[in-house]
Amino acid sequence: MSRQQRDALDAMLRSAPRSETPPTPEEQRSGFAAAVTRPVPEGVVTRRTVLGGRTALELEPAEVSGQGRLLYLHGGGYVIGSPDTHAGLVGELARRAGLRALSVDYRLAPEHPFPAAVDDGLAAYRELLATGTDPRDLVVAGDSAGGGLSIATLLAAREAGLPQPAAVVVFSPWVDLTLAGGSIRSKEGADPIFTEADVRAYADLYVGAGDRAHPLASPVFADLTGLPPLLVQVGANEVLLDDAVRLAGRAGADDVEVTLEVGPGLPHVFQHHYGRLDEADAALDRAARFLAAHLGTGHPGTDRPEPAH
Amino acid sequence: MSRQQRDALDAMLRSAPRSETPPTPEEQRSGFAAAVTRPVPEGVVTRRTVLGGRTALELEPAEVSGQGRLLYLHGGGYVIGSPDTHAGLVGELARRAGLRALSVDYRLAPEHPFPAAVDDGLAAYRELLATGTDPRDLVVAGDSAGGGLSIATLLAAREAGLPQPAAVVVFSPWVDLTLAGGSIRSKEGADPIFTEADVRAYADLYVGAGDRAHPLASPVFADLTGLPPLLVQVGANEVLLDDAVRLAGRAGADDVEVTLEVGPGLPHVFQHHYGRLDEADAALDRAARFLAAHLGTGHPGTDRPEPAH
Repeated sequence: MSRQQRDALDAMLRSAPRSETPPTPEEQRSGFAAAVTRPVPEGVVTRRTVLGGRTALELEPAEVSGQGRLLYLHGGGYVIGSPDTHAGLVGELARRAGLRALSVDYRLAPEHPFPAAVDDGLAAYRELLATGTDPRDLVVAGDSAGGGLSIATLLAAREAGLPQPAAVVVFSPWVDLTLAGGSIRSKEGADPIFTEADVRAYADLYVGAGDRAHPLASPVFADLTGLPPLLVQVGANEVLLDDAVRLAGRAGADDVEVTLEVGPGLPHVFQHHYGRLDEADAALDRAARFLAAHLGTGHPGTDRPEPAH
Repeated sequence: MSRQQRDALDAMLRSAPRSETPPTPEEQRSGFAAAVTRPVPEGVVTRRTVLGGRTALELEPAEVSGQGRLLYLHGGGYVIGSPDTHAGLVGELARRAGLRALSVDYRLAPEHPFPAAVDDGLAAYRELLATGTDPRDLVVAGDSAGGGLSIATLLAAREAGLPQPAAVVVFSPWVDLTLAGGSIRSKEGADPIFTEADVRAYADLYVGAGDRAHPLASPVFADLTGLPPLLVQVGANEVLLDDAVRLAGRAGADDVEVTLEVGPGLPHVFQHHYGRLDEADAALDRAARFLAAHLGTGHPGTDRPEPAH
């Protein structure tokens, strides 16, 4: 436990300046980049590439085991964030799991509203398979909006008749753009980052007048049947706590193997704070073990026979 | 994965004879004992003792590490079951965790309705502390009604001003005697053991005309603040699936460190089927690691300082 670390992080997050006038998306993007970007971990080599027609950042740890590939979808409310803002987090996850990672620069709202992000996620996933990646060697992960997008991408892949990957991990997933979870209000005081209004503003920019309950925008309302083993991690100090809990409940009801972990006293995507918050390192280690443990396994959704016992 | 094992187990459970006339509690108890009792694992020594004024079965594995003690509360709808019916399951958990276990023969309904079971659970917990067990060396576990009773016992301990144990594990916990979970109906076809009517009959015998939403009868409605780290395991083929999901959600919202694991294709308290169902062995191993990992740790609910870092 790290009560002092948690309290210091909470105070730091609450001290972030709030502007009087709403920032433009460009101002939000540069402010977010300045606030969260951390260096690529030592020993992880990065290079720019293109995947599914979009720029992507490839991250290759010094030690990789086997053919495993991680497709990562960053968070930022579908409006902000990039592979660069998340290069530290993705590099840490890739390093701990021994996986080469690809982090996709999917299109952002409001310039490119729903379903542009899902289209880009699916195109990236489809190209990985088309260029020879065995789905049993492929895992998917994402945080916040990128967690919702990870689930939406796998649903889109299922609808397209593509096989499922070996596993999926989501950190503090945003999976309900209708904001129906009870924690959207009950956790406003505890959440050092978001208010209900903040979250609603992102939904406005991403979906606008569209259907916010669409299963590819709000996968908590989707039939999740056929998805691979799923790990959901969330902090208790989050207005999005109930997104995570309900996603896990929906997955379990739809016969998806699911693990939910709720960490008390922790903020949104606390995994960003590896190296200075014990719970972040422990959570990343568990996520890495979960991904590595499922690599090479088939399951019904992959359309491949299960390995014999 | 063990699709064949799961299917065989499902067929076996569905083949259990159902009597035309409702059995008496005594007939239920002997039928349950004949159906589920498994031998004490090799190397585990058992002896009868008394704890909190009730008979208890002590189970001591050949290899124990440290001072750890496991208090176990068996399942059976608060009406059936005993330390003997669960000696195999508890012995397996104790052996894998390297813990000495005490399984309490708490009073059963309808002869002894709510809150007799909670009184006995609290008396057992209180005596363990009074005879010198450090709460940091103590963990609690239970299945089905015994899972609900485990949570209720810790709530009663909290209200009595007693420190909390180091961790608690519940298998397929029954924590809502009002039967408000959606899975009570949506999973009736998938559940090879229980119908809604079966579960309601147990609630009738345990609470009768009393308040079924009482937090010590239905801890899903309780404030769970202060409880220790909690692991919840449940099968997806259970009318009680939503009891587990909502307990985890409630715990997370109340700042309890909680992990929920949902296993697809698995029935109520599938852990009983260790040795013949891979998922049962894997789940027992995870539960044992969870208990062992938390032994010796304090947390706010124990009223002891956290270990320094």
